[in-house]
Amino acid sequence: MCGIFAYLNFNVHRERRYILEVLFNGLRRLEYRGYDSSGVCIDSSDLASISVDQSIIHSNSLRPLVFRQEGNIEKLVKSVYEEVSATDLNLEELFPIHAGIAHTRWATHGEPAPRNSHPQSSGPGNEFLVVHNGVVTNYEVLKETLVRHGFTFESETDTEVIPKLAKFVFDKANEEGGDQSVTFTQVVIEVMRHLEGAYALIFKSRHYPNELIACKRGSPLILGVRELNEHLNNEPLYDPKFLPNANEPKELFFSSDANAVVEHTKKVLVIEDGEVVHIKDGGVTILRFDHGKDKHSGSLTRPASVQRALSVLDMEVAQINKGNFEHYMQKEIHEQPESLRTTMRGRLIREGSCKAKSVLLGGLKDHLKTIRRSRRIVFIGCGTSYNAALAARPILEELSGVPVTMEVASDLLDRQGPIYREDTAVFVSQSGETADTLHALHYARENGALCVGIINTVGSAISRNTHCGVHINAGCEIGVASTKAYTSQIVVMAMLALAIGGDTISNQARREAIVDGLVDLPNKVREVLKLDEEIKDLAKLLIAEQSLLVFGRGYNYATALEGALKVKEVALMHSEGIIAGEMKHGPLALVDENLPIVVIATHDACFRHFGIPDSKQQSVIQQLHARKGRLIVMCSKGEESLVCPGGSCRVIEVPQVEDCLQPVINIVPLQLLAYHLTVLRGYNVDQPRNLAKSVTTQ
Amino acid sequence: MCGIFAYLNFNVHRERRYILEVLFNGLRRLEYRGYDSSGVCIDSSDLASISVDQSIIHSNSLRPLVFRQEGNIEKLVKSVYEEVSATDLNLEELFPIHAGIAHTRWATHGEPAPRNSHPQSSGPGNEFLVVHNGVVTNYEVLKETLVRHGFTFESETDTEVIPKLAKFVFDKANEEGGDQSVTFTQVVIEVMRHLEGAYALIFKSRHYPNELIACKRGSPLILGVRELNEHLNNEPLYDPKFLPNANEPKELFFSSDANAVVEHTKKVLVIEDGEVVHIKDGGVTILRFDHGKDKHSGSLTRPASVQRALSVLDMEVAQINKGNFEHYMQKEIHEQPESLRTTMRGRLIREGSCKAKSVLLGGLKDHLKTIRRSRRIVFIGCGTSYNAALAARPILEELSGVPVTMEVASDLLDRQGPIYREDTAVFVSQSGETADTLHALHYARENGALCVGIINTVGSAISRNTHCGVHINAGCEIGVASTKAYTSQIVVMAMLALAIGGDTISNQARREAIVDGLVDLPNKVREVLKLDEEIKDLAKLLIAEQSLLVFGRGYNYATALEGALKVKEVALMHSEGIIAGEMKHGPLALVDENLPIVVIATHDACFRHFGIPDSKQQSVIQQLHARKGRLIVMCSKGEESLVCPGGSCRVIEVPQVEDCLQPVINIVPLQLLAYHLTVLRGYNVDQPRNLAKSVTTQ
Repeated sequence: MCGIFAYLNFNVHRERRYILEVLFNGLRRLEYRGYDSSGVCIDSSDLASISVDQSIIHSNSLRPLVFRQEGNIEKLVKSVYEEVSATDLNLEELFPIHAGIAHTRWATHGEPAPRNSHPQSSGPGNEFLVVHNGVVTNYEVLKETLVRHGFTFESETDTEVIPKLAKFVFDKANEEGGDQSVTFTQVVIEVMRHLEGAYALIFKSRHYPNELIACKRGSPLILGVRELNEHLNNEPLYDPKFLPNANEPKELFFSSDANAVVEHTKKVLVIEDGEVVHIKDGGVTILRFDHGKDKHSGSLTRPASVQRALSVLDMEVAQINKGNFEHYMQKEIHEQPESLRTTMRGRLIREGSCKAKSVLLGGLKDHLKTIRRSRRIVFIGCGTSYNAALAARPILEELSGVPVTMEVASDLLDRQGPIYREDTAVFVSQSGETADTLHALHYARENGALCVGIINTVGSAISRNTHCGVHINAGCEIGVASTKAYTSQIVVMAMLALAIGGDTISNQARREAIVDGLVDLPNKVREVLKLDEEIKDLAKLLIAEQSLLVFGRGYNYATALEGALKVKEVALMHSEGIIAGEMKHGPLALVDENLPIVVIATHDACFRHFGIPDSKQQSVIQQLHARKGRLIVMCSKGEESLVCPGGSCRVIEVPQVEDCLQPVINIVPLQLLAYHLTVLRGYNVDQPRNLAKSVTTQ
Repeated sequence: MCGIFAYLNFNVHRERRYILEVLFNGLRRLEYRGYDSSGVCIDSSDLASISVDQSIIHSNSLRPLVFRQEGNIEKLVKSVYEEVSATDLNLEELFPIHAGIAHTRWATHGEPAPRNSHPQSSGPGNEFLVVHNGVVTNYEVLKETLVRHGFTFESETDTEVIPKLAKFVFDKANEEGGDQSVTFTQVVIEVMRHLEGAYALIFKSRHYPNELIACKRGSPLILGVRELNEHLNNEPLYDPKFLPNANEPKELFFSSDANAVVEHTKKVLVIEDGEVVHIKDGGVTILRFDHGKDKHSGSLTRPASVQRALSVLDMEVAQINKGNFEHYMQKEIHEQPESLRTTMRGRLIREGSCKAKSVLLGGLKDHLKTIRRSRRIVFIGCGTSYNAALAARPILEELSGVPVTMEVASDLLDRQGPIYREDTAVFVSQSGETADTLHALHYARENGALCVGIINTVGSAISRNTHCGVHINAGCEIGVASTKAYTSQIVVMAMLALAIGGDTISNQARREAIVDGLVDLPNKVREVLKLDEEIKDLAKLLIAEQSLLVFGRGYNYATALEGALKVKEVALMHSEGIIAGEMKHGPLALVDENLPIVVIATHDACFRHFGIPDSKQQSVIQQLHARKGRLIVMCSKGEESLVCPGGSCRVIEVPQVEDCLQPVINIVPLQLLAYHLTVLRGYNVDQPRNLAKSVTTQ
C-alpha cells in the first residue's frame, strides 16, 4: 500500500544523476507495494553554474522540483529524463548535501493520475512536499477548513491536506512570531496534531533545505544509515550502534521497508508509532509525539527527544533479486522446498527419556501452559494469512482439543466481537504490518487476551506488539500474491499444534507421523513442483475462461479458498473457493458443461468414509458428473481411477503426505496454475491490477 | 432432494385415470424437491375385461407398469398419456384396491435420464419396485455382490441395488424355505440390514399386490390417512387419532413432506428413523428396526411392532398455492411483511413492574440460564440458514457477551471440531431435515452440548431432536431459493439475542429500540418492496453479465453472502459475496469498468466511524471509484450524496432501521434482483438448475 522513500547525502558529493538513480532504485524495490503511479522530488539550483560551496550558502534559492507520472516506475524514469533534457537540468551537477524524496502509489483516494500522485505539494512554489503511505480519515473536514482559508486543491487525494496544512501552520507562526522563526519539527508536530488515521510521512520543505522529517502512526517506516568513513567504525557490524556522529560523511535513507535499504546498508532503525525523526546538518534527532496527550496541549510545544539504538538487518541483497526466474512469484513458488526447510530449521527435535519426536518453538515455550488452558484459540488474519490459519485449524483442534475460532481481522473489528482474558488470540501476517490485523491485535490486547504472532517480518509492528510468537522464516517475499509465506505459515501452525498438543500417549503415533511428515515435506514439495509443465498445459486450456470454481473440504477447504484467491489476484479471473459440503446449497446451480471446476479430492478422512470408497468427496464428484460438470480433479498419486472412472475428467495427481500437511502440497499446483494463467493471459504477475503487498490501511 | 409419493386406495373404487392424477398431483407438490426426471408405477391387469371381484382374486396376475421420463412432471404426464393411448390401457378401469408409487428426482448418482429415474426395478417382470430419497453409500459393494450373483444393472444410480437386493432376498428365502413363504416385511427388513447411508424408501412388489412398505433412515417421510366413512369418526378433527380400523374404506398416502398430502387429509403420522410401515388389507402395521442391533441378528427375524398416534397438520392448502403471483419465489418475497408478523406474533411483550419491552420465547424459557452461562454459542447451518445466523451473530454477541462461533454444518462434521458440554449449539434450518445440519445435531448431542433448534417445519427431524428451540412460523416455503424463511430466521435470532441478553439496565435503551424496530419491521419491509419496479430496471441492465460481486461488512456481511447466493442459485450468474474488509486482500484485482459491484453501505457503525463521514465503508466505495468500478450502492434513505458524490454510481435507497435489523431490509432488494434477473434471463425461478429444496443428503 504505497511505498515511500527518501535519500539524503551529507558531506559526500553526489551527482544529480546519481541521486535520481538512488531514488528510482528505491522505488523499484518498493514497487510491489503499489504501482499505479509514482513521483520524486529533488532540488534544482536556480543558478546552474554556482560552485559547490556557494550552493550551500545560497541554499534558500534551491527550488524543489517535482516529477510525477501515472503507471509504473519505468514510466516515471523515462518521463523524468525526457523532462530533464528538455529543461537543460544538469545531471552532472554535484551536491555535497541533498535531500530527495520519492513515492510509489497504490490508489485509495482518487484514480491513478499525475495530479493524484505524490509528492503532494503545498501549492505553487512547492514550499512543503509530502510523501504519504496510509489514509487520513478526517481529510474532508481539514480540506474544508483550508479551502475557507484560501487554499486551492488540485487532487482528489486525502494526502494533499498535509502539505497545505504545513504551509498554513508555517505562515501563521511567522505572522504571529514576527522574526522569531518556527522550526521544521514544530511545523510537522503541529500538523500531526490535526491528523486522524494511519500514516507514514516524509516532509521536505523549501524553507528548510537539506532537511527531512519523517513520522509515522500505523504505517511502517525505517531509517537506514550508511557511514562512509568506514575506518572510523571499529565495532563489528552485527552490534547495534547508536546514531552516527553528526559531522561524518554519510548517507541516510527513509523507506517503507528494508528491501529498498539493504543494498546500501544493513544498519537500520525501525521507527515507532509517534516518533518524529528529524535529519539536519548530518545529525538525527528523534522526538516522541503522544497522539493522545500532545494533541490537545498548547501549540508549537516540543515533545521530549528519545535515544534509540540501530539494529542490523538479517537479510541479503540476493533475497530480493529474481535470480534465474522471470518473476518474483515464480521464484517464490519454486523456492518453497528451501523456505520450508528454513522454517523448520532447529525446531524439530527428539526429547525426553524415550527420545520422542517433538517440536521446539523457543518464542512460545513459556506460554504453552497458558495456551493449553485457554477457553478458545482465536485465529485472526486477512487474505492468504487467514487461509493459512484455516488450513491449520483442524490439526490444532485435534491435538489440543481447544475450540479454534476463525476471525477475519476486519470483521472482528466491525463486530467488536467478544474477546476475553481466557482467550488466546493468534495473529497471522506475512508482513507483520497488515493494518486490520494490527488493529485487531490492539483490540485483543485491550481485552486481555494472550496475543501470539505468526509473522514473517522480524521487527514488524505485529511481532513487536504480541506477547510471544513464532517467526516463519520464509525469507523476504516480494511477489504480491503470497506463496511461500502461505506454506511456511501452515507448517509453523502445524508445529504450534504439536507444541500445544502436549505429550499424551494416545496421540503419540499421530504426532510422530506428523513430525516425520514435516521432515519429508520439502522433498514432497520438490516432487509436486515437477508438475510445472503439466499445469502450464492445463492453464492453456483455461486461458479464455471468465469463471472458475474450486471445491475443497476438511483440511483442504482452505486450499480451495487460497487456490481461488491466487487465480483471482493475479490472473484476474473470477474464481471462487467453495466448501464442497455447501455445493448442494446453491453453487451447484452454476455447474454446466462449460464452467471449469477444480475439485480437491486427495486421500484423507473426507475421501474415504466408513472405510468404504463412496466417500463424501467422491460423492461430490459423482454429483458434478451427473450435472455434466467440466472437472479438474486433484487426487493422490495412484488414485486417478477412484476419482475419475472412465477418464472422464482431467486429473492432477499429487504426492500423498500426512493428511494435515496435505494443504501444503495441494496448494502448489494451484499456485502454478495462477502463475501460468497470468503469464499466458498477458498480465503482470508481480504487479497484479489494483493490488499491493502488505495492506497497511484499513 | 427427490420427492417420493405413494397412493393406496382401499375398499373404495377408483378409476385408473384418477389414480394416475393423484400420483401426478403428488409429484407436482413435491416437484420443488427435484425436477430432473420423474416416474410412476401403477398396476396393469392382464385381462382388461375381468370384473372387479375377480380382479382381487387374480391379483397375482397384476403386472406393475413403470413409466419414467427425463425432465419435469408435465413431461412425464404427457408421455404417460401418450403411452397409455398407444397400448390401449383402459383409463376408466376401476380398482377397489390399488397401490401406486411415484418419484421426482434430483440427480446425485447418474445423469438425468429415464434409465436413472425411479421407480427402480428388480429387473424384467418388475418383481420389486422402489422409490428412494437419499444416498446409499455402500452401493458399490452391494452391486459387486449382486453382479456376481447374476444380476444385470441398467442404471448408474445407487438406488438400483435396493430392488435387486429385495429380489435376491426373496428368491433365496423361497429356495431355502420351500413352500413356507417369506413375508414382504421380512424381505424389506433383510434389505435394510445391508444398506448404509440415508434413505426414505417405498417398496411395491408383484409378489405382494396391493401392499406397500415404507421405511426411512435419515430422509423425511410421512404417512397420510383419509378415512372415507366420515360419519364413523365422531372425534373432533384436531385430536390426535390412532391408526384407522382395517376394514373401513380409506385412502393412504406416503410422501416426503406434507405439501403433497394436505389437499387430501390433515391426519398424518411422521415416520421416525428405523420404522418400517406396512400397509396391507386396509391395516397399517409399524415395526421398529434398530439399525445398530438388528443389523447383526439372525436373518428374517421380526422386530417388535410399535403403537403410534396420528397428528393433525397445521397447514392450509392455500399456503401451497401461488395465489396471484407468477412464481412461488415472487410470492414468498412479497409475503414477507406478513410472514414476519406471524413470526413475531405473541412474542413481543411488556413485562416486569416497569413494563419494559421484552420478548417471550416459550420454547426456550427454561433454558435461558444455561445458554447465558455457555462457554460459546455455536451457530450451525447450511446455505441460506447459515447466512441468517451470520446476520444475527453481532447482536447476539453484543447483548449476551458470549462468543458466537459460526460453523458450516458439513465443515464441522468434516473436521470433527470440538464441541463440549459447556457449549450451546444452535441449529438453523428451514426444513428441519437438512442432512448435514441433522448429522451435526447428532454429533453435538453426543458431545453433550445443549442443542437449540431454529426451524420452520414443525415436527421435522431437527425440531424433534433438539433440547429446545423456536419455530420461525414463516409458513410453508416452496421456492427453492429461500426468501421469507431467511428474514424470519434473522428476526427469531434477534429475539433470541434479546431473550439471552437478560435485563441489564445499561442495555435497556438498546433493547427497547430493537423491540420497537421489530414491531415496525413489517411496515418497513412493505416500504422496501416498493422498489420492485426500480430493481427490475436494474436487472435489465445486468441481464447479460457473467459475474457480480456483492460487498458488505458488519451486520451486512451476511447480506452480501445471501444476496450473492440468491443470484447464483436462480439467475445462474457467478455472483460472489465478499466481506468488504477483505477487498484489498485480493478481490480488488477483479475490479474494472465492466464488472458490476453491489456495495451495501447503509447507515451503521461501520458506515460512520469516529463520528466522521469518511467511514470504513465509504472508504471502500472511494477505493472502488479510484479503480473505476461499476458500482451499485445500497444506502439509507437520504444518504445518496454521501455514498455517491456527483451521481457517479447507481443507488438503491432503503429505509433505515435499527442497525442489527438492517439485514432484514437490505436483503429484499437483492431477492428482487435475483428474481427479476432470472425471469429476464428466461430461467425457471422456482426450479433452478441442479438444485432442490431441503438437501436431505450429505
